[in-house]
Amino acid sequence: MLAALAEGLNNVWVVLAAALVIFMEGGFGLLEAGFVQTKNMGSIILKVWMDLTAGSLAFWFVGFGLMYGADRAGLFGTSGFLLHGAIPLLPNALSPYAFWLFQAAFAVAAISIVSGAVAERMRPRAYLLYVLVMCAVIYPISGHWVWGGGWLDKLGMRDFAGSGVVHAVGGWSALAAALVLGSRRGRWTGSVSTSPASLTLAAAGCFILWFGWFGFNTGSTLSATAPALGLVAVNTQLAAAAGGLVGFVWPLLHSERCDAPMAMNGGLAGLVAITAGCAFVSPLSAVLIGATAGVVVNIAFPLVERWRVDDPVGAVAVHGFNGAWGVLAVGLFATQGGLFSGGGLHLLGVQALGLAALSVWGFGATWLCFKALAATVGIRVSAEDEAVGLDVAWRIHSGVEADAGAGAVVGMDMVGMASETAS
Amino acid sequence: MLAALAEGLNNVWVVLAAALVIFMEGGFGLLEAGFVQTKNMGSIILKVWMDLTAGSLAFWFVGFGLMYGADRAGLFGTSGFLLHGAIPLLPNALSPYAFWLFQAAFAVAAISIVSGAVAERMRPRAYLLYVLVMCAVIYPISGHWVWGGGWLDKLGMRDFAGSGVVHAVGGWSALAAALVLGSRRGRWTGSVSTSPASLTLAAAGCFILWFGWFGFNTGSTLSATAPALGLVAVNTQLAAAAGGLVGFVWPLLHSERCDAPMAMNGGLAGLVAITAGCAFVSPLSAVLIGATAGVVVNIAFPLVERWRVDDPVGAVAVHGFNGAWGVLAVGLFATQGGLFSGGGLHLLGVQALGLAALSVWGFGATWLCFKALAATVGIRVSAEDEAVGLDVAWRIHSGVEADAGAGAVVGMDMVGMASETAS
Amino acid sequence: MLAALAEGLNNVWVVLAAALVIFMEGGFGLLEAGFVQTKNMGSIILKVWMDLTAGSLAFWFVGFGLMYGADRAGLFGTSGFLLHGAIPLLPNALSPYAFWLFQAAFAVAAISIVSGAVAERMRPRAYLLYVLVMCAVIYPISGHWVWGGGWLDKLGMRDFAGSGVVHAVGGWSALAAALVLGSRRGRWTGSVSTSPASLTLAAAGCFILWFGWFGFNTGSTLSATAPALGLVAVNTQLAAAAGGLVGFVWPLLHSERCDAPMAMNGGLAGLVAITAGCAFVSPLSAVLIGATAGVVVNIAFPLVERWRVDDPVGAVAVHGFNGAWGVLAVGLFATQGGLFSGGGLHLLGVQALGLAALSVWGFGATWLCFKALAATVGIRVSAEDEAVGLDVAWRIHSGVEADAGAGAVVGMDMVGMASETAS
Repeated sequence: MLAALAEGLNNVWVVLAAALVIFMEGGFGLLEAGFVQTKNMGSIILKVWMDLTAGSLAFWFVGFGLMYGADRAGLFGTSGFLLHGAIPLLPNALSPYAFWLFQAAFAVAAISIVSGAVAERMRPRAYLLYVLVMCAVIYPISGHWVWGGGWLDKLGMRDFAGSGVVHAVGGWSALAAALVLGSRRGRWTGSVSTSPASLTLAAAGCFILWFGWFGFNTGSTLSATAPALGLVAVNTQLAAAAGGLVGFVWPLLHSERCDAPMAMNGGLAGLVAITAGCAFVSPLSAVLIGATAGVVVNIAFPLVERWRVDDPVGAVAVHGFNGAWGVLAVGLFATQGGLFSGGGLHLLGVQALGLAALSVWGFGATWLCFKALAATVGIRVSAEDEAVGLDVAWRIHSGVEADAGAGAVVGMDMVGMASETAS
Repeated sequence: MLAALAEGLNNVWVVLAAALVIFMEGGFGLLEAGFVQTKNMGSIILKVWMDLTAGSLAFWFVGFGLMYGADRAGLFGTSGFLLHGAIPLLPNALSPYAFWLFQAAFAVAAISIVSGAVAERMRPRAYLLYVLVMCAVIYPISGHWVWGGGWLDKLGMRDFAGSGVVHAVGGWSALAAALVLGSRRGRWTGSVSTSPASLTLAAAGCFILWFGWFGFNTGSTLSATAPALGLVAVNTQLAAAAGGLVGFVWPLLHSERCDAPMAMNGGLAGLVAITAGCAFVSPLSAVLIGATAGVVVNIAFPLVERWRVDDPVGAVAVHGFNGAWGVLAVGLFATQGGLFSGGGLHLLGVQALGLAALSVWGFGATWLCFKALAATVGIRVSAEDEAVGLDVAWRIHSGVEADAGAGAVVGMDMVGMASETAS
Repeated sequence: MLAALAEGLNNVWVVLAAALVIFMEGGFGLLEAGFVQTKNMGSIILKVWMDLTAGSLAFWFVGFGLMYGADRAGLFGTSGFLLHGAIPLLPNALSPYAFWLFQAAFAVAAISIVSGAVAERMRPRAYLLYVLVMCAVIYPISGHWVWGGGWLDKLGMRDFAGSGVVHAVGGWSALAAALVLGSRRGRWTGSVSTSPASLTLAAAGCFILWFGWFGFNTGSTLSATAPALGLVAVNTQLAAAAGGLVGFVWPLLHSERCDAPMAMNGGLAGLVAITAGCAFVSPLSAVLIGATAGVVVNIAFPLVERWRVDDPVGAVAVHGFNGAWGVLAVGLFATQGGLFSGGGLHLLGVQALGLAALSVWGFGATWLCFKALAATVGIRVSAEDEAVGLDVAWRIHSGVEADAGAGAVVGMDMVGMASETAS
């Protein structure tokens, strides 16, 4: 009975953590809808919807097997497709189903990072195909390298809950996607509003993400009796708080502005950055890692803009840069093997190598995929659709019946849209 | 100590699952507010509020005893009112309080299904009375039949988390309610907008419902050590993903439209349909059940419209049709006794009989209740109130002080309402 | 292994409960943003953001040690700063980290109560400083008295999850803050709208708070095997339901109005009031306590107005008055020692004394702090900033680039703001 109890406890823990991570899709959806232009709020929600639905199914069909199946040459897995077959690294006293659900939620989170970067200008069919590739192949392959017994795992890379595996891969994929897709028309001539459609909804998304992150990081123990469980949760909170405070204070000191989006992005940056090290560093280090993330995101945002990369919700600055920072921070702050704990440069080197591999893979695979999609189904919406907004162009928010007089009704459809029709 | 630990684990599990189901009220509220016309957003929120408050109290006072009390002739229970007295079917190693809370959350969910179907035209006092009847009598009686040791339970009907008990009963009750109440004035002449007030808020509600469904289905194990726990969670996710993807792709293929409400309703349909069978079918079957639900909801929506039933948020199509589909699907896909597993037609027959009984009961009892309410307190708001919208008519969103100049202030009160005053 | 399992279960329980309480910040944010004027929605979100970020860090740096460190004369603690050193009252079989996170979430909740009362008129720097003082000193000191082994603890005061420690202290602090800060310009001449910016968003916040309260109250067991766990959860639900129903019905009977904000405040009042006694009273008593809270909030609201205290989201009426009611209700309804259970007046006397001490401390400390801030950095925004709204004044919702043509863009920024530009 003791064994049954132990497995029951772990199953409950991992299923609840997975549910929290799945709820993060609501956070991504609201954050992104709140940050884009009102005329595209529905289209970005639909992208997140594709992440959650198509992404889960693709991961079930192919991705999980490539990530956690029996290892082939340290590069990919070969079993566990469709939830059949062996899972060599299944943790002790855990249902394979609970394990699968948690991993599927991570795959969906990885693709959701990209959804923000392609907002307001990508075709739905092309995006759907990319979701399938990301969750079936791109994310699982690099996931296998670090978590599935692959070559980075064997080298000793440490990425507890995925600053590298999820966020750096997602963030640099977002960079590649934004580059191939190109900027929104008029983005650099000022004709695209970069003010949030709804700061309140974006904030709601941010609070949901923060909440879900306790599932993301703490659930990565995959065992309720893991000694680090409490520490992981505390580090998550402290890093997020430090990042969120620096993200708020930095613009206040530098430009006398209460930059709410930057405050929120600072908090998210802190969460991204502590994700790799939350089980390996002290609370004081978590505060330093998070505070640094708040600075990094403040610097990365204008930098990405200077590169003329159009990333409507800041996926590259938040997830790319701070995913990278989080992976490297383990090499600096880890209480075992970190540079600042007298562990020398070995771990830092491994982390840097792993980061480079993950980044090149994420960026390169997404670049190729987007180039292939561009050459075949087409990735960019027409200039007319972009001008009128995807919600109208795709007839997204039409009700059950066909909207006879769409033009007349549209003004009533979207939160805040009234402002445009009124002005 | 082991026994205390086992009960502690179950209590934590069931209380957290109950909290998730209670949070689904937020999901219902946002989904319905997002799907109705802006002038009635507040009134629908208040309906959900009545579900949660009056519904909980009615279930405490009467309903729970009728549902889980000592059985009388297989028809209803006779103890446990006000949380006093015996609970014969209390699971092992579980606090009666935790059990009660979980069941109360289900009763509230059942009534919330109906709240959407009567949106924009029902009187608040009549609705409040119906909430009391539903949570004190209608839902508990049929619940007793299947889960409380009643006659359908004895026949061998299988409805793990309530595709029939909650969703079919709720959905066909919604149909009866909409029929007696009648359509919104101008609904079939095009003068009622069927475009969502706020797709983003509706989506937020949908994400909350998806999240809460992990409590709904997985919590129905009522034991953390139930072997099916992980499977239930995975099946829930896969069926929702399949339904949500088909709900999105179907209109895209048939009418070149990204129909966001239908995508979300597809996901919800998948969730409703897997609720009965989540513990009894394989993941592959869950995908098929969910995908079929995505088709069912796409067909049921226009069908309900053709019947001239005015169901503003689609409760009949989502919960009625797919609750029915979910109950029958157990007879087809169950790994033990299902038709496709070589179990023959017996289980399918029992499921069909149970479904018929639940449907007739839910539809009939609600029909009678609404007829009685119509003949006494009145169920329909005045034509003037309906035209101006219930939020203004009921002075719902007035602040703490009496709004002296209500007319002037109203335009500022509701999200999106500006569009109407502006146009 | 049994001991490891017991601690693992408690850690999981307390970390999840803490995450729920932290998610309540999203509830506070949406509730407050929904209840203020549209032109200040962003600024109130930022206040909650400061609560969550700066509050967590201040509690980590100083507050936790003052609250739970080794006791000095019954007045404050002296160890545990920065999560170093002894925690004398650490519960059995619980990680100190999990314990810390739960307590930090409470400190953040306490300050968030005040954030609503100072809405729409307080300077950001002054508020940030107050957050630090509240979470580092004011809340922890009174928390030590009752929960940290202080003098009220020794006297036998009973406040299970903090009607007094969190809500009365927060509510009377809010009163002091609102008094020193003064009313919004034009508040009593009718030129300030008291209608909600968005009832739907406020409702979303309310549902999140209700959900999170299961973590707040039930998690306060700090042990999964606490016998009262199920009872606490049920009492929480029943009191909230009773308060929410009375809050809705009272205005309906007295002024024929469906007052949605009052309905929600009734539910919150029920939650606040049951927080002290949820582990000590019967479900029937919980219903009575909650229903009374629904009346109290209906009476307190106009009373606070008559005092000419400008409390934009009702923090004093909800948290102050009902925190007080909740503390006293323990003396009346407790099954052990309560007046109505034949326990005489002793417990009621202790509760009244404790309530007085907490109230004087909260009110007095905040009054002094606000006076000091007013005399130094300044607490009140300029008349111009108040008129235009803090979101514009603080350039809160400007995007990443500087908004060249802010005036033109502003109308598009905030949900609902359109109404103002349109009218």
